[in-house]
This record gives sequence, C-alpha cells and structure tokens, in this order.
Amino acid sequence: MSGQAFRIFDVEQDLIKANEKLAKEVQKVFHEKGIKTFDIVGAIGAGKTAILEALVERLKGKYRLALVTADVTTEIDADRIRRHGVECIQINTGRECALTASLLKNVLDKLPLNDVDILFVENVGNLICPADFVVGCDKRIVVVSITEGGHVIIKHPLLFKMSDVAVINKIDLRSIMDVDPEKMVEDALTINPSLKVVLTSAKTGEGIDELIKALGL
Amino acid sequence: MSGQAFRIFDVEQDLIKANEKLAKEVQKVFHEKGIKTFDIVGAIGAGKTAILEALVERLKGKYRLALVTADVTTEIDADRIRRHGVECIQINTGRECALTASLLKNVLDKLPLNDVDILFVENVGNLICPADFVVGCDKRIVVVSITEGGHVIIKHPLLFKMSDVAVINKIDLRSIMDVDPEKMVEDALTINPSLKVVLTSAKTGEGIDELIKALGL
Repeated sequence: MSGQAFRIFDVEQDLIKANEKLAKEVQKVFHEKGIKTFDIVGAIGAGKTAILEALVERLKGKYRLALVTADVTTEIDADRIRRHGVECIQINTGRECALTASLLKNVLDKLPLNDVDILFVENVGNLICPADFVVGCDKRIVVVSITEGGHVIIKHPLLFKMSDVAVINKIDLRSIMDVDPEKMVEDALTINPSLKVVLTSAKTGEGIDELIKALGL
Repeated sequence: MSGQAFRIFDVEQDLIKANEKLAKEVQKVFHEKGIKTFDIVGAIGAGKTAILEALVERLKGKYRLALVTADVTTEIDADRIRRHGVECIQINTGRECALTASLLKNVLDKLPLNDVDILFVENVGNLICPADFVVGCDKRIVVVSITEGGHVIIKHPLLFKMSDVAVINKIDLRSIMDVDPEKMVEDALTINPSLKVVLTSAKTGEGIDELIKALGL
C-alpha cells in the first residue's frame, strides 16, 4: 500500500458493519431491561458533560439514572457526574477516535441494569468519527456550542442527519459571539427536518427543561 | 468479526505506516522546493482558520504564501483565506476523520510550488485522529481555545506531544470564561516541555506577533 493513495474510511467499512451488529446486541439488552438510552455526541468543549450534569440534577429525583462517559485518557467527566450522586462508568478509549458498541458492551456488567430507568452514554469529543459508529442507544443527541462558530452545523451534516435531538449550547454568550443561533437552528433543520433543536445554556439552566421535553422525559 | 470485540485503532496500523511513508515523500518535495511547511490541527471552532487569516495578513508582504485547508464538506475555510488575496486549495475529506499525506499529495500539482516560501496546511477540526496521521509538514501547530474548557489539553496529550507550537486562542474571552489560561500553558508544557506555547486572540490580534516568532518567521 505504501506510496499509493488510500482512504481511512474505506478500510473501516468492515469495522463499521461489525460495529452495527454489536450495537444491535447492546440495544437488545437495554430493551429487555426496559431502559431508555441516549447517546450524546459533540466536539470537545461543546458542553456535553455540563448538559448531562444539568439533566442529571433535574431528573435524578424522578428516574433511576446511570451514565457512561467516554474520554481519550482521563476520568474527569465521570468525576463531574458522580458529584451529583449518580452512578457513572468511565471508558477510556485510548487512541480510538469514537466510542464503539464493543467498548460499551465491555462495561455492561459494571452497570446496575436491573435498577436503571434511563442511561446516558457520552461519546468522546469528536464531531466526525462518531457518525460512523453507533453504540446501541435509542436516541442520539448532538451538542454544539455557539463558541464553535456559526458554521459548525453545516460543516458536519452527517452527524445531524443521524441524530434525534440537537442542542445548541452556551447561548448565554449570545451577545458577545459573532454568530446567529437562529441561523444555526435553521441549518440543523435544513439538514434534518425531523430533528428537535433546543437552544441551551448549561451554565444558566436556560433551555434545559425544553431539552427534557425534547427527549420525551 | 461480528459479535467480537474490536479496536478501530488496531485495524488502522497498516494505514498509519503507509501514511508515514507517503508523508516522507510529500516532505521531500517541499524540501526540494525550499518551502517551509506548517500543519495546523485543532478541534472545530478553536479558531484555526481565524489564526491563519491573522498570520496571512501579517506575513503576505514578506513571504510568498500558499495554503491548503481541509474540511469534511464545505469550501468555507478556503474562501475566508482567499479574501486575503492568497492562494488556497480546499480539500474535502468527506468521511475521512483527518487529513492524510495521500490527500495532500493529490493536490500538490495544484499548488504553485516554485513560487512559494511558506505553506500552511489546515487539518479538519478534530483533536484525536490527526494525532495518528502526519501529512509531511516540517512543524505542527495545535490550536485550542479557552472556550473549550480548561481540560482540553490534558484530555488530548498525544497531539500536544507531537506538536511544535501550541496556540491557546480566544484569550479575549478570558474575563468571562471560568478557565485559567496559565494553567493550560502549564498543562501543555508538562505534556511536552519543548513545546512553544502562545496565548492568542485571532479577533483582537493579541499574541499573533509572538506566534510568528514561535514559528521562526
């Protein structure tokens, strides 16, 4: 292959198919246990963990929650969630650029699956690779923030096409950022008209109740 | 493979080696032409293109510049650069999660290589995959922004280990973000003590002259 052109994506096709099969196995386990599952994707720093913290704080009195957070190297995200008194398993993906169904399957026995109503699975911070690797959750939430620039959505159509809910976060910074959140909403709906789009600030709490409604909870 | 555990990264090992060999071929072309080359990596929205616009504006009177910008789908970044009157080739990587030496090699004949002193190559917005795929440039610049949160550096040690210059951007938002830029500098230098770290604001121009010095230009 050396000296020749090659494509990363082509070589990954077998992996993607194997992953889809495993994801169905994982999803079957969740369905058998009656657990509602959400997979959260988004770039580093978009506020995925902060959004989860806000959701956990509002939902923990009403549902039995568990979380899985994925990160390349650290345990920082899981520690943030655990401070809210909720079970959280950390997966370190190492050099993997996305969480896979295989990695999620590996930790299923660490989760209290008989005592959980809702499971949130936070992917690694990456807006590209997770588009190709589903993990077996019922719904996918994509999180972007207005600090990533107004073009972040149209630059990543694939992830918005395959998500159910889109969160446009850090809306508290609206007045100082040179972006139009309403245009971002429009971009998201143009890519995927059935998407539920919510403007949020994990910091101030704005939009979190609307997000809970959009998740059907 | 279906039903079995697998790792994306393991399967990519052959690709990574083939890419390294191609990167050396690309680098040889640049060296023969006497072109200084810089590869810019960072997450979506960190400000890679904005930093490049600031550099181009200051350097275009002194050097003959050319740029290559990579993006999953759009031509937005190249158009931003071209507005400064500088040659810019756009590579659309499609479903590839990183720019590869192969993709860069494919556009070499579109670049005016005999009339260029400095080439900047902007990678796709991703802090994970580009760590495994070098493209044949002499120096790598990694760009993060303080809006990505204080942990963005320690969460991505690999990319900081293999970079020569680290840019911590959007420093103009210092007073409203709950992060300590000096701690981020410290994190970067702990991971890679030989890294040159520069605090910048592409918006106000703060730190751009220091960045030019750090690049040896």
